[in-house]
Amino acid sequence: MEFKSKHLLGLENISKSDINILLKTAFSFKKVLERSIPKVPTLRGKTVVNLFFEPSTRTRFSFELAEKRLSADTVNFSASSSSVLKGETLKDTIRNIESMKIDLVVMRHSSPGASLYLSQCINAAVINAGDGAHEHPTQALLDMMTIQEKLGSIEGLNIIILGDIKHSRVCRSNIFGLQTMGAKVGVCGPGPLLPRDIEKMGVTVYPTVEDAIAEADVLNILRIQLERQKGGLFPSLREYRNLYGITKERITQAPKKLLIMHPGPINRGVEIDSEVADGEHSVILKQVTNGVAVRMAALYLLSGKEANKIIKESS
Amino acid sequence: MEFKSKHLLGLENISKSDINILLKTAFSFKKVLERSIPKVPTLRGKTVVNLFFEPSTRTRFSFELAEKRLSADTVNFSASSSSVLKGETLKDTIRNIESMKIDLVVMRHSSPGASLYLSQCINAAVINAGDGAHEHPTQALLDMMTIQEKLGSIEGLNIIILGDIKHSRVCRSNIFGLQTMGAKVGVCGPGPLLPRDIEKMGVTVYPTVEDAIAEADVLNILRIQLERQKGGLFPSLREYRNLYGITKERITQAPKKLLIMHPGPINRGVEIDSEVADGEHSVILKQVTNGVAVRMAALYLLSGKEANKIIKESS
Amino acid sequence: MEFKSKHLLGLENISKSDINILLKTAFSFKKVLERSIPKVPTLRGKTVVNLFFEPSTRTRFSFELAEKRLSADTVNFSASSSSVLKGETLKDTIRNIESMKIDLVVMRHSSPGASLYLSQCINAAVINAGDGAHEHPTQALLDMMTIQEKLGSIEGLNIIILGDIKHSRVCRSNIFGLQTMGAKVGVCGPGPLLPRDIEKMGVTVYPTVEDAIAEADVLNILRIQLERQKGGLFPSLREYRNLYGITKERITQAPKKLLIMHPGPINRGVEIDSEVADGEHSVILKQVTNGVAVRMAALYLLSGKEANKIIKESS
Repeated sequence: MEFKSKHLLGLENISKSDINILLKTAFSFKKVLERSIPKVPTLRGKTVVNLFFEPSTRTRFSFELAEKRLSADTVNFSASSSSVLKGETLKDTIRNIESMKIDLVVMRHSSPGASLYLSQCINAAVINAGDGAHEHPTQALLDMMTIQEKLGSIEGLNIIILGDIKHSRVCRSNIFGLQTMGAKVGVCGPGPLLPRDIEKMGVTVYPTVEDAIAEADVLNILRIQLERQKGGLFPSLREYRNLYGITKERITQAPKKLLIMHPGPINRGVEIDSEVADGEHSVILKQVTNGVAVRMAALYLLSGKEANKIIKESS
Repeated sequence: MEFKSKHLLGLENISKSDINILLKTAFSFKKVLERSIPKVPTLRGKTVVNLFFEPSTRTRFSFELAEKRLSADTVNFSASSSSVLKGETLKDTIRNIESMKIDLVVMRHSSPGASLYLSQCINAAVINAGDGAHEHPTQALLDMMTIQEKLGSIEGLNIIILGDIKHSRVCRSNIFGLQTMGAKVGVCGPGPLLPRDIEKMGVTVYPTVEDAIAEADVLNILRIQLERQKGGLFPSLREYRNLYGITKERITQAPKKLLIMHPGPINRGVEIDSEVADGEHSVILKQVTNGVAVRMAALYLLSGKEANKIIKESS
Repeated sequence: MEFKSKHLLGLENISKSDINILLKTAFSFKKVLERSIPKVPTLRGKTVVNLFFEPSTRTRFSFELAEKRLSADTVNFSASSSSVLKGETLKDTIRNIESMKIDLVVMRHSSPGASLYLSQCINAAVINAGDGAHEHPTQALLDMMTIQEKLGSIEGLNIIILGDIKHSRVCRSNIFGLQTMGAKVGVCGPGPLLPRDIEKMGVTVYPTVEDAIAEADVLNILRIQLERQKGGLFPSLREYRNLYGITKERITQAPKKLLIMHPGPINRGVEIDSEVADGEHSVILKQVTNGVAVRMAALYLLSGKEANKIIKESS
């Protein structure tokens, strides 16, 4: 079992074997995280740069914890106080950082393809922590890890993603990864928030939440970005909740025991009710916990360590 | 001697025994800080999150140094670039952070009770680094440590706090802690800056600075927050200085050798003159030094380590 | 060989011997940086504070990496969220930080002389990371290291600095350092961007870029600060490029093989063309790499370690 990816830019072009290695390695690191000292010296002396051109709390936090638990040195970069503001090109910024001899770069950027571009400019391994509406692979991996943990296997499951499909990098990464792992993927959301040719991605479009719930094993509920409302893409939060909000009433109609997921931060009372978010079906906080393990796995594998080693050690 | 507190939210409800343990542990860590390598591996592998919802330099700095000298991993959170801005509730932010398995949270927040609320939501130990005008326990502990260091014991001393009593979390924490340790506490300041029922806290109100100085062992001079002046709570900085400013002339009237304290940052020429701030009675910079030791003690004790161990080791 | 400087405030008053020790130590650390684990435990337990009162990416980044590769603990301070905003004097901020017992301070500040002032207030060693238009010694040292690396020796070389001479701390530090090391230094730039008495610094003023290129061994091209254009100091970017921009055409006229340097960030197509910046004469990214080594050397030597030790170890 050999991990072949040099970067983690998205799940569109990653093999099933590499996803399996990532998930297995993440489960191994989850055991490390349950120790009284949840830390390993694995990346001691390696330097990871967190390049966040968009503000972020939970993703940056999760990466930073993952890096520290691997004993890497971390340096944080935020666009607000940077030479980006002085008119430097992204390529020059990146090549400069690389010249300081760093090993791994974690990047979030508002432009789709920014991390691909980065990976073409430098030798260090690149992890995409979100590039515009394109991909957010570690989020999809932590979603998949959580599904595996709760339901055993992803294969054959019917996983339905709800909400603002069009603008969601989380959704895109999930569709690619879940399909590679053999799941059926469906989507459901207001017309203006669905990409026009979404069926070409091989997903089923469910016209109503009720239709979706009738067939789903897993509901992955996306965050409604309140700022989009101004663009007139949906009429009101109340109407959104009426049509698409996941309420206790709705999930009790489900024929199967649903797994309720959300990448956070949640809008209570809009796309999800508190009773559901905090209820027995919800694995929302488990997703957060697994996020650190998934990011440790990605950092570890991309730093050139053998996958088998950590998997053997902790089993 | 067993440290019983699970969190350090304030000094209102903490036992004399726990305060004594905190102070003794702080004196032990002060010895560590005087070594050529002022660092111990005590909290290696533990993760501390500094959650600062209000800007802060010296308190955040002091905590961060304390954490690094205990070899903890630290992650900093500031509200400005966070999902708090995306409308997430404090509880959801906190539960997310907890799901990443952290051991200790240091929080500053503008709302009184925010750290109590935090402690009720999560399992990690919580240290209040200031919650509105409510409490700031590590500041009061470092004040008490400095008094002990200079005067031997707190018991029986007359400690008078000057200035904006009404809006001061430092003052409140000092009143609670000092009374528990057997000191008499007095206050003095402009009427609009005194809480109406302040005597019910068991403190003496001194009508003038001269009255206060005539009886004080220690003067703890609070910072005048210049922005409050706009609210019309006192007429002018010049008048404030005339009535309440601690000048060399005023302290030479004191019958006892006064100890001059200030939590900083100081307004030279307003609540305190440079001659006093930099003079022989001042322990203002000693307070800063002791702050790191006090915060190391709090982090150490709340992480579940036995108090006796470090006290024995360094004695 | 003994390093005598207590601080690194500038290159105006530093001896040739100390510059030689700094450069030799930097070359030793460069070897450390080429190891698979580019990290040494040299400053374990030492605390470095990065006090950046002006925004900075590459310099702060470079210092932070240098500190981590020496295993120092680092604490970052930025002016934006600080008590400086509360009206505290610089001296009080500094004395407070010192009271927390730190070993080294790296400071960038908009006022010339700020780091000298800092060094007079505290016991910790101070490294100037840029003080207004005054000095930026580590930048000049990394420039000198890069020249030594490529050309063997600095002595006797003709090094010409181009552009906004008047406002450049990089230029001033280079003039002082290069002259101490026996180089001839020239400058060239628009009249309003040349200090009036620049010849008194012992430099040759070249009226045109062509004149400069005809005699230069090294061209150090300064960044045009676009914001200065508003002040009317030069007419247009196009005209600047026409008169002073370093194009491929211009450097092919050079009788010697030129070394092309730039402290970054570069304005492609203004003071330097991409063909030159990315071409065979350019050592711009080598400068960045050497920057980390130079900063490690400065931190190491100022922390009181013997220079010979690391030089011997790595040779």
